[in-house]
Amino acid sequence: MKKPTKKPFPVEQIRRYLEPGPIVLVSSRWKGRNNIMTMGWHTVMEFSPSLVGCIIAAGNHSFEMIRRSGECVINIPTMDMIDQVVGIGSCTGAEADKFERFGLTAAEAQQVKAPLIAECHANLECRLYDRKMVAAYNFFIFEVIAAQAAPTPKYPKTVHYTGDGIFRTTERTLNRRARFAPHML
Amino acid sequence: MKKPTKKPFPVEQIRRYLEPGPIVLVSSRWKGRNNIMTMGWHTVMEFSPSLVGCIIAAGNHSFEMIRRSGECVINIPTMDMIDQVVGIGSCTGAEADKFERFGLTAAEAQQVKAPLIAECHANLECRLYDRKMVAAYNFFIFEVIAAQAAPTPKYPKTVHYTGDGIFRTTERTLNRRARFAPHML
Repeated sequence: MKKPTKKPFPVEQIRRYLEPGPIVLVSSRWKGRNNIMTMGWHTVMEFSPSLVGCIIAAGNHSFEMIRRSGECVINIPTMDMIDQVVGIGSCTGAEADKFERFGLTAAEAQQVKAPLIAECHANLECRLYDRKMVAAYNFFIFEVIAAQAAPTPKYPKTVHYTGDGIFRTTERTLNRRARFAPHML
Repeated sequence: MKKPTKKPFPVEQIRRYLEPGPIVLVSSRWKGRNNIMTMGWHTVMEFSPSLVGCIIAAGNHSFEMIRRSGECVINIPTMDMIDQVVGIGSCTGAEADKFERFGLTAAEAQQVKAPLIAECHANLECRLYDRKMVAAYNFFIFEVIAAQAAPTPKYPKTVHYTGDGIFRTTERTLNRRARFAPHML
């Protein structure tokens, strides 16, 4: 698989990748072992600090790895990675090294020990910011403390999950800048 | 504009409409006045009870209306409504009745006093479930207590915001059921 060349990306602009709501891959590292999970339940929460909230169900092998390490990387896969996305979501890291199993490359991050997935379009390095909602809802609030992204395409084709094995893909881009109130841009 | 005929939709299946991450329209009612806001920062949090978390910035006219009434409706607009979506996000309900201004129909909900937007593909009636994160993050957790949706198309073309006046649209549907572990569907 291709590994796009990436550049640093401003953390306060990560809505470009997350707000459209794609399926993402979350990579983590704990006690020398790496893991990846597929995640569809996430939302941007703030521009600065750059906050992302997400649900990581306690049944996932990644749950304790992320809770204990206090770190993860949110990786944005493109449409050509859909079969890895499905495969990663259908097996557990307790039994397999998912990087190896799915032919993905664990690359070194800048600010966290959790690995990046080199094949993804963008990588958001996250530190756990607020764990108060973890016990009640499995809801983690992360601060994105560093990010890298492929400069082109500016708007990658991503995959969006609806449940029941069915995905949508984003392909067309519609520019409505001229219709926005300037302060809303 | 067309007003699709809708049927009751199971609240535990609303991920079909929300998990792909579309821009949504949030309608509310307080002291006899209706309002609508455009919202992009939301996530499914639980199947049952059917929970949705979302950011409603305190600067929005809708913030106090929803906080005080403890209710809202999350409406799913389709691609043909993009200009209403942008217009609603660019003005304030303090000055205008947005239903009137944008030619939208306030229809009666089943379980809440907040109005439905009849022109939208689906309407999720929400009651405020947990307000503990409102003060710190403007983060509201709602329970979807009733829902209606147009039966066709099963997967509507929705709009997804990236910031900066640029939207993506979901058009293609990819079926990967056969690749899922059965317990993951």
